[in-house]
Amino acid sequence: MNYKIIIRILGRILFLEGLLLIIPLIVSLVYKENIYLSFLIPIIFLLILGFSLSMVKTDNRNFYAKEGFVIVGLSWILMSIFGAFPFFISQEIPSYVDALFETVSGFTTTGATILSNVESLSKGMNFWRCFTHWIGGMGVLVFILAILPSSEGQNIHLLKAESTGPQVGKLVSKVRFTARILYLIYFALTLVEIILLLLGGRSLYDSICTSFATAGTGGFGLYNDSIASFNLYCQIVIGIFMLIFGVNFNIYYLLLIGKVKQALKSEELRWYLGIVTFSIVSIAINLVLTLDYSIENAVNQSFFQVSSIITTTGFSNCDFNLWPSFSKFILFILMFIGACAGSTGGGIKISRIVILFKSLKREVNRLIHPNIVSHIKFEGETVDENVIKGVNSYFALLVFLFISTFVLISFDGKDLATNFTAAAACINNIGPGLTTIVGPMGNFSSFSVFSKIILSLSMLIGRLEIYPIIMLFIPKVWSKR
Amino acid sequence: MNYKIIIRILGRILFLEGLLLIIPLIVSLVYKENIYLSFLIPIIFLLILGFSLSMVKTDNRNFYAKEGFVIVGLSWILMSIFGAFPFFISQEIPSYVDALFETVSGFTTTGATILSNVESLSKGMNFWRCFTHWIGGMGVLVFILAILPSSEGQNIHLLKAESTGPQVGKLVSKVRFTARILYLIYFALTLVEIILLLLGGRSLYDSICTSFATAGTGGFGLYNDSIASFNLYCQIVIGIFMLIFGVNFNIYYLLLIGKVKQALKSEELRWYLGIVTFSIVSIAINLVLTLDYSIENAVNQSFFQVSSIITTTGFSNCDFNLWPSFSKFILFILMFIGACAGSTGGGIKISRIVILFKSLKREVNRLIHPNIVSHIKFEGETVDENVIKGVNSYFALLVFLFISTFVLISFDGKDLATNFTAAAACINNIGPGLTTIVGPMGNFSSFSVFSKIILSLSMLIGRLEIYPIIMLFIPKVWSKR
Repeated sequence: MNYKIIIRILGRILFLEGLLLIIPLIVSLVYKENIYLSFLIPIIFLLILGFSLSMVKTDNRNFYAKEGFVIVGLSWILMSIFGAFPFFISQEIPSYVDALFETVSGFTTTGATILSNVESLSKGMNFWRCFTHWIGGMGVLVFILAILPSSEGQNIHLLKAESTGPQVGKLVSKVRFTARILYLIYFALTLVEIILLLLGGRSLYDSICTSFATAGTGGFGLYNDSIASFNLYCQIVIGIFMLIFGVNFNIYYLLLIGKVKQALKSEELRWYLGIVTFSIVSIAINLVLTLDYSIENAVNQSFFQVSSIITTTGFSNCDFNLWPSFSKFILFILMFIGACAGSTGGGIKISRIVILFKSLKREVNRLIHPNIVSHIKFEGETVDENVIKGVNSYFALLVFLFISTFVLISFDGKDLATNFTAAAACINNIGPGLTTIVGPMGNFSSFSVFSKIILSLSMLIGRLEIYPIIMLFIPKVWSKR
Repeated sequence: MNYKIIIRILGRILFLEGLLLIIPLIVSLVYKENIYLSFLIPIIFLLILGFSLSMVKTDNRNFYAKEGFVIVGLSWILMSIFGAFPFFISQEIPSYVDALFETVSGFTTTGATILSNVESLSKGMNFWRCFTHWIGGMGVLVFILAILPSSEGQNIHLLKAESTGPQVGKLVSKVRFTARILYLIYFALTLVEIILLLLGGRSLYDSICTSFATAGTGGFGLYNDSIASFNLYCQIVIGIFMLIFGVNFNIYYLLLIGKVKQALKSEELRWYLGIVTFSIVSIAINLVLTLDYSIENAVNQSFFQVSSIITTTGFSNCDFNLWPSFSKFILFILMFIGACAGSTGGGIKISRIVILFKSLKREVNRLIHPNIVSHIKFEGETVDENVIKGVNSYFALLVFLFISTFVLISFDGKDLATNFTAAAACINNIGPGLTTIVGPMGNFSSFSVFSKIILSLSMLIGRLEIYPIIMLFIPKVWSKR
């Protein structure tokens, strides 16, 4: 284990967080809010600490997959610990554990909140809250890779550990350029959404914050009713952009370099759009038939909620907790499926689900014809057997971690449905669950301190796709050799 | 697909079922109950139908894994359909779907019931109900293999499809002798329990029926309070015998041929006893600390319930639904772990869980050291990679099927906890769930016809370990070639 290089990179991350905190500081100054110290203290602290750590001298700059996971895991935990300071220092969130939960929920783009009245937060604080979504969406190490020159060969371990999906590759031969392209697309798409929301009549502040929360597929809203008070045009813009940010960014890169045909042939994209369409139509029919909704209203609500849940954003334009069972179950299943690999969305990811089902199908076939050796194809290519094993293990681990979360938070004594959907909403980075307590109109404040810490870990496990967090708990990983 | 051989073997199964039904007929005659027609009609029907089908001529007696699965799947379904007739004809269970549910629950050794008053059943009917547990426990095809001479090479497919666990092998070189040894051990152990219960003062009828339900790890009781009214000696006998029937029968074979050391070295056995001991101790402590139980009482209840749930029997000597959360969660996890492979118990099976965890550990190791090739050892031997893939797929499929069951029965509108534990109790062949409605003092009668059919399928899927049932729904399996 190369401890020095880990410390150096963690130093850079903390320094960067210090710099990023300057933006909400400016926002709060613009709005003449008297909370500048709540930002200034952590900024100074982070800049000094970050700078000192990043100056640690080391001759050996080699690091491997193991270090990659540890760096990613630790940096997300440290960023959350320090990112919670502004909320706590300003006392806008009086309990530190609550502030931590909110920050983890922000960075992991979960969007679960402990606030019962979001509107009481200052502008500066709400900006920071939504900004954490944007930072966490594409990942902070990807950002570091994009801006800092560094020894190329090893950075792939950081990119792999922080990006989502079963197979992480580079778009171009250099990791640095890959990271830059990803951030450029991310930035450009966010900008387009801001402009479209401005056109819809929202204020600049509203447009920026809402776009941050959409881009990261996070779901923190500025209003207690999420975005239900936005006009229909804005709701449709947000609905579409949630879906856009749930697509694998490789697709946009392909479009960018003119390979339109190849982009549209993507198997994952087709499954994604297929599942979305099927879910919207079937929920809309269910709403028309059971709740007597008009077709227009049913399609509008169904479209928005499906888009919000499959991309694991968590915005809502209605209380879907009141929907009939069938619709709720579709949403529940979408929660686990999640968005595409390489997007900002959470969940298991479409490509993993597709590969998993193909491997199950192969397994059944193997029982019928034991001697046939067959390969699994995905996106037109043979999938490496290690990837298939990885997908199977990922699924099994996720189920164990989900059950563990569920069991651990159950000690609070809440009802099984609440615990079950709260655990699902956190580990899949969605935000709201499916019961009154943790539903779109509820919040997580009533959980105990212990449960909030468990749920925070769960959100990190979900966003970082398990390994960077569990590696931290394996003693062997920390051995010198 | 060799249809003729399938029909021939199904014919034998139905003929056998007709013969087996003669035993409860005799019981009812002994007790001078006026229900002999309820047995006689199905007996005559099954003997004629079974005999005719088994006379189908075929030159091609070859069959393979595919046919093995289909035969096992179909024969269990047919046996349940016809086995429900006595209950329905006698109108002791007035609804046919209820009778079917009860029969499936019997054969699959689940022990879930739709009866609110078991004591109202006639002696003959209750005997048949418990006898289905005994028949299903070791498997009806294993029985056929034991008694009928047949072409040896292919019967292994039937043994594999009906037996439980990730790796099914033969004890001795011939399938027929393997089947005989298994049934001999099964019969002998059942006999010992009957004698011990007789010594404890139970009537012959009680002793036989209770031993059938223990041997199959089924759990149907003769009394509304399960076995809570039995004296402590009898409860301890039943508790120990549940554990005994949850052990891989290979262990008993090893003991029988004098390989005591090898038997005791079994990794699965050690895990099994370890998990049992840990669970008993921790639940007992929990009961003493929270419910002020005496140590003796706590150990007694904890021992009995742990033994009952991990072996998926489902007997109860108290209402564990009233236990504190911690204890209930231990039971909930035991429900899924289940007993040893090659036992009469259900659940995922200890060996699968151990292999799954070892493969997850290897996966995490592979991420740390990508270039190391390592094998998984179990029971002192390297596990074939296909077995590991099989275990991973089995787990993923079980999760999907469990979720599907849970979703489908949710349309009845019961609470989430009831649906969740009912689905778990059926697919793992346990019997009672963990809420008032389906708990040890409740029953499944309030579910809709649709849900009862889904739960019946679920029980079959659990007992036959998925594949024999899902194969029936794959069109390709049915093709001629």
